[in-house]
Amino acid sequence: MRKKIIYSFLVLFALGFYAKADNIGKVQQGYCKYVNPFVGTLGEGNTYPGAQVPFGMVQVSPDTEKWKWGAASGYEYSDSTIYGFSMLHLHGTGIPDMGDILFMPTVGKVQLESGKKDRSEPGYLSGFSHNNECAFPGYYSVLLDDYKVKAELTATNRAGMMRFTYPESDSAHVLLDLKHVLRHNVVWSNVRVVDDCTIVGMHQVKGWARERYVYFAAKFSKPFKQAHIFSDKKEVKYDSYKTYRFRSSKDVAGTDIQLVADYSTKEGEQISVKVGISAVSTANAMDNLTNEIPNWNFEHIVEDAQVKWNAELSKFDVEGTQEQKETFYTAVYHEFMAPVRFADYNGSYRGLDQNIYKEGKNKNYTLFSLWDTYRATHPLFCLVQADRNSDMINSMLAHYEQSADSLLPIWSFWNNETWCMIGYHAVPVIVDAYFKGIQGVDWEKALEACVSSATHPEFDALPSYEKLGYVPYDEENESVSKTLEYAYDDYCIAMMAKDMGQKAIYDRFIKRAMAYENLFDTSINWMRPKDSKGEWMPDFDTRFFKHMGAFTEGTTWQYSWYVPQDVQGLVNLMGGPKDFEVKLDSVFTTKKGKDYKGVDDIHGRIGEYWHGNEPSHHITYLYNYIGKPWKGQKLIHQVINSQYGNQPGSLCGNDDCGQMSAWYIFSAMGFYPVCPGTNDYVIGSPALPKITMNMSNGKSLKMRCENYAPKNIYVQSVSLNGEKWTKSWFSYDEIKDGGEIVFKMGDHPNKSWGKNRKAYPPSISK
Amino acid sequence: MRKKIIYSFLVLFALGFYAKADNIGKVQQGYCKYVNPFVGTLGEGNTYPGAQVPFGMVQVSPDTEKWKWGAASGYEYSDSTIYGFSMLHLHGTGIPDMGDILFMPTVGKVQLESGKKDRSEPGYLSGFSHNNECAFPGYYSVLLDDYKVKAELTATNRAGMMRFTYPESDSAHVLLDLKHVLRHNVVWSNVRVVDDCTIVGMHQVKGWARERYVYFAAKFSKPFKQAHIFSDKKEVKYDSYKTYRFRSSKDVAGTDIQLVADYSTKEGEQISVKVGISAVSTANAMDNLTNEIPNWNFEHIVEDAQVKWNAELSKFDVEGTQEQKETFYTAVYHEFMAPVRFADYNGSYRGLDQNIYKEGKNKNYTLFSLWDTYRATHPLFCLVQADRNSDMINSMLAHYEQSADSLLPIWSFWNNETWCMIGYHAVPVIVDAYFKGIQGVDWEKALEACVSSATHPEFDALPSYEKLGYVPYDEENESVSKTLEYAYDDYCIAMMAKDMGQKAIYDRFIKRAMAYENLFDTSINWMRPKDSKGEWMPDFDTRFFKHMGAFTEGTTWQYSWYVPQDVQGLVNLMGGPKDFEVKLDSVFTTKKGKDYKGVDDIHGRIGEYWHGNEPSHHITYLYNYIGKPWKGQKLIHQVINSQYGNQPGSLCGNDDCGQMSAWYIFSAMGFYPVCPGTNDYVIGSPALPKITMNMSNGKSLKMRCENYAPKNIYVQSVSLNGEKWTKSWFSYDEIKDGGEIVFKMGDHPNKSWGKNRKAYPPSISK
Repeated sequence: MRKKIIYSFLVLFALGFYAKADNIGKVQQGYCKYVNPFVGTLGEGNTYPGAQVPFGMVQVSPDTEKWKWGAASGYEYSDSTIYGFSMLHLHGTGIPDMGDILFMPTVGKVQLESGKKDRSEPGYLSGFSHNNECAFPGYYSVLLDDYKVKAELTATNRAGMMRFTYPESDSAHVLLDLKHVLRHNVVWSNVRVVDDCTIVGMHQVKGWARERYVYFAAKFSKPFKQAHIFSDKKEVKYDSYKTYRFRSSKDVAGTDIQLVADYSTKEGEQISVKVGISAVSTANAMDNLTNEIPNWNFEHIVEDAQVKWNAELSKFDVEGTQEQKETFYTAVYHEFMAPVRFADYNGSYRGLDQNIYKEGKNKNYTLFSLWDTYRATHPLFCLVQADRNSDMINSMLAHYEQSADSLLPIWSFWNNETWCMIGYHAVPVIVDAYFKGIQGVDWEKALEACVSSATHPEFDALPSYEKLGYVPYDEENESVSKTLEYAYDDYCIAMMAKDMGQKAIYDRFIKRAMAYENLFDTSINWMRPKDSKGEWMPDFDTRFFKHMGAFTEGTTWQYSWYVPQDVQGLVNLMGGPKDFEVKLDSVFTTKKGKDYKGVDDIHGRIGEYWHGNEPSHHITYLYNYIGKPWKGQKLIHQVINSQYGNQPGSLCGNDDCGQMSAWYIFSAMGFYPVCPGTNDYVIGSPALPKITMNMSNGKSLKMRCENYAPKNIYVQSVSLNGEKWTKSWFSYDEIKDGGEIVFKMGDHPNKSWGKNRKAYPPSISK
Repeated sequence: MRKKIIYSFLVLFALGFYAKADNIGKVQQGYCKYVNPFVGTLGEGNTYPGAQVPFGMVQVSPDTEKWKWGAASGYEYSDSTIYGFSMLHLHGTGIPDMGDILFMPTVGKVQLESGKKDRSEPGYLSGFSHNNECAFPGYYSVLLDDYKVKAELTATNRAGMMRFTYPESDSAHVLLDLKHVLRHNVVWSNVRVVDDCTIVGMHQVKGWARERYVYFAAKFSKPFKQAHIFSDKKEVKYDSYKTYRFRSSKDVAGTDIQLVADYSTKEGEQISVKVGISAVSTANAMDNLTNEIPNWNFEHIVEDAQVKWNAELSKFDVEGTQEQKETFYTAVYHEFMAPVRFADYNGSYRGLDQNIYKEGKNKNYTLFSLWDTYRATHPLFCLVQADRNSDMINSMLAHYEQSADSLLPIWSFWNNETWCMIGYHAVPVIVDAYFKGIQGVDWEKALEACVSSATHPEFDALPSYEKLGYVPYDEENESVSKTLEYAYDDYCIAMMAKDMGQKAIYDRFIKRAMAYENLFDTSINWMRPKDSKGEWMPDFDTRFFKHMGAFTEGTTWQYSWYVPQDVQGLVNLMGGPKDFEVKLDSVFTTKKGKDYKGVDDIHGRIGEYWHGNEPSHHITYLYNYIGKPWKGQKLIHQVINSQYGNQPGSLCGNDDCGQMSAWYIFSAMGFYPVCPGTNDYVIGSPALPKITMNMSNGKSLKMRCENYAPKNIYVQSVSLNGEKWTKSWFSYDEIKDGGEIVFKMGDHPNKSWGKNRKAYPPSISK
């Protein structure tokens, strides 16, 4: 997915502009020093620069934007004002939500409205400069110019801490705006003053997530002189002749609530606010806070976050330039931000049915951007986050059991299903993990959940798909994309069923896995929409995009390649390797056609290859299936060099909960899981001199380039564990016990490596 | 409190008109046969005729009205249409709320709007006739004329069961309208179809209770053909080209939701729906349902409810006419409807702070109409519901501990404080129980809670009250009423503190107990508003009422008598017994003055004595304090005979969670707790020949009239446990071990009984 607004022109702003860490102390130890949290904050990346521990439920980060689709994380690097610091954010999604429980330190006249970025209306927002901004894993700081307040943020799993350094003032404040949320609406909220250092409350948001409850408990390091609560912009206090009946000034509920805590401050005085978050209750939010941040040692929290990040980042050890390391470790950092843990310290969590459950030995996770992350994120997790991937799959199975429709998650977060995007891509995540031997999953139940999800009688034309062998465009939108992705998911189910001896399921789904054939029009050599009578869509323009048309965020130029389970079958349909090659070349060389609203914000384009969105992600690797891997090697390097980097504007598209980063991490190592659910990795061309991946099973896989140089983008030869490797792919079984892949590189293609049919990666068809 | 709309003209409709029980089987055994649940449904009583077990959390009852203040229970006997049957109702309050989770059986075209009572707009409501209606404890039935469907209702503590008998139809339905609630607004709701017999869901209501969550789980005895869910009056179902992304037709949330379950029915086919309710979760609602109604035996639930009611009603054994018995047992029935248990079967309950708590050995209750019920309801509970009263007080202390303001409940229900009415009358409830020796309460904490509530720095001018010795009318509305009621509450605190050896608290509060003196203007012999400078309100019209004026739902004619802790002090202020007597006589004999909006709906008037509202409830007993009990005896009989009865229109005012009924029960027994918090009962004049009260301590107190006859309203003499009783009062200590009070009655006053000062009930002053 990708954002709806073009920011590409803003890339100019970003050059060498992101701020450096200041002297907080023992900062940026170990791998953390290679992470730049600002990467992806300029333009389409939709990342946030704030503080989070790996896979942490809480993401404390500044919000500079709350309305535009183009800043779904709440932060856009080209902005020059900050609304405040909120506790929850989405990593790299294409749709805004979250931004919950916003705090803002202010000085002077109290403002209850946020104000406008163009300063046409006053408000509590403040100007800031990137010169006074700093971020590294677990830490973010900025100087708020309007108030001369320095704000610093850090986080634990379920809590955050903010430290505000004030100027001298007898009118210093900490404001809480419960109405603030990114783009969407607060249905209800409440807040109560527990004592002069403590407030608790909640808000319920009807957003992208339909019904989301966020509870908080906040403690202030210094007692406030007074806390004023405002509802509908009026202070709530009892006034006999105005309110008639008593009103508590400490316990307020409604839909538009702010709280302002008043202070007098000395120059340089620090006031910290620590905030626990829960989806269950304020009591649990307080329990989370008490257990995770028992004292006021801000530096300790930062250090602890860095220790956690270093432990995760150390799963990779790379050699390369500073820029390469920053690019790589930032990608790993982004990769380990989502999904997020979603349970309280005491193990309680809110389920899809809004009931409160208690974790057993499986830990609950949420934020499953599955249309994106099944491709490379979860396959990477199989290698380096095996236990977490197991927990994530168990979380998906819990979702399935809590689903009124007996569906696995499609696109879910914070115990809500958004129904975003297409397919049922929890399936490849499950099947991929199954074949990788991930432990701790009830695979019988998992297969049941996969079949149930693939056969829902109302979901996205599944009955017609099974009956006709394709999704007809006169019944269903995005019919071609759905057909192709269903067929791939079905292949995964078939393979798992076969392995588990479930023949009836295998037979049913291996047939469905071939559905792609039914929408390939050999007369034009494109995937083409077909109606329920079996007629091709007339006057088919391959470059035309229409919202609710036949293709999902793209055209047949991208989608005609979506047959990862049977690339050879596709080659055959296209008329053989030569026709396939000519066509595949043309994707990258064709002149850009008319750009249609709805896809005009997808960037990272090379011809009609759109790296800024996921349907293209496997395409460069398809050259291996026709014995021309060198063509892919060149393109892979082109993508890595032009669409990734260590700058705020380096990401060409939404990071999509890590999928963009996962593509980079795999590709930088020289291989990519074109067809998750199989154990096959297709060999590309490594981007760094050396990468060691320390896998969850305790083994290490080393990738090393001989003759590494930036211009040496072509693979001359490969050896795997000392064996000369002539296949242009390898299997999980061949690397699961660790070992070494050595790429010998050169500046000219070795066109004979991987040329023979025996070298091709597997497909259903031969 | 009382309703806002006059219905008195409708009393005409009621004569002999309420329906009789039909042949459900073992109905109306034991005491239940004397209960008429329709009493109070016509006019101001604000009772509901539906099914409830004693103190049950669930009240399944028909809703005929959802907007008017005048039908706060949802049912008004003069209506001829029914919207449906909802699960929760308030007993006898003056303000509407609840009416949650409404089901309606219909036949034919599906209607999603309720329609209007005048049939100017179509809807799902149905006409009905009282001829086809029947109610007794634990059971209600009606024939819905529009649909020819008979609906029967019964209830357990946390669940209800509805049995619908349909005509033959291929278009029969059960409709659920989650938008339905009495008068107020649904903030959010959701519903999900679990299987073809089961639905669950919730709604959140912003009503009189600010933030109320009601969860339900419903099971249908017959699988529905289909369940359609509507949101904003449109069916929710996925339509590729209309909704774009998938929508579940089984899991819907929003603010305006209906569900329609479709059936084909044979003539006379019964379909039952059983519904569990919880304030915590749908899981708990289902658990409540499963445990309390495990099968489909409707009759068994009815029988069980009757067994429970008989056990409670058997706390009284009376002799009298059928009408007297019906009047009496219906009063007892009404008395034991509220407060209600408020915890799930597993002990979970939602607290004032919206957190979920677990019951310990104390059972949680809610619905505390304390401004009303401290007067006679809780004093009666001390005698016959001692354990429940202990639980109720512990529930109040839990409320105190969960209160952001450290206040005991003022007027609370369903874990919400409404701040309705004035004073802090949890105090007399606590103190009364303390002196009655109620077990299981932490009295140290209770005293702390009382003091905290009486000294809140922002509540209703308490600081000015303490500083000035009265509430000044230029600072605070209802200043006279507040002063008088505070002073009484403070007396209670003083007495408890004294008994517990807390001298500082005693000294502080016994002084405050005399605050009434400061607002008695001896120049006019009335309680009179005074401003903060100590000046009396000029141009004071004793009959003038103004909303937010100096008196609460009344004038100085009622409030000048509100010094229950020191009636002799008031006698002295008024110039002695003679002046007091003349003035007290005038209350009952004065011609009615101009009636002002805001009090024009208070009925039960005898002159300026307004029995339809609580401030008058003790006044007839004040004659005992000047040696003229015979004057009170006559008036008490006048009230009993004119303002109570066994007919729908018999109650002259809101039953107010039982206070109107408690006045009757005490008065019928011949005594009344004029000053709860003391152990003194002031003797009146019994209304029935014989009443035995079986107290919670296992002892029985028998009241017996010699020479009983309707015209013999005057007490000639009294004996208590065989002792000739010359005092016009007795103490709890004198009856707590049971015994017998014998009244010798006559048709002429015995003016010498109770005449001597030694016979007067106690007061602070002599």
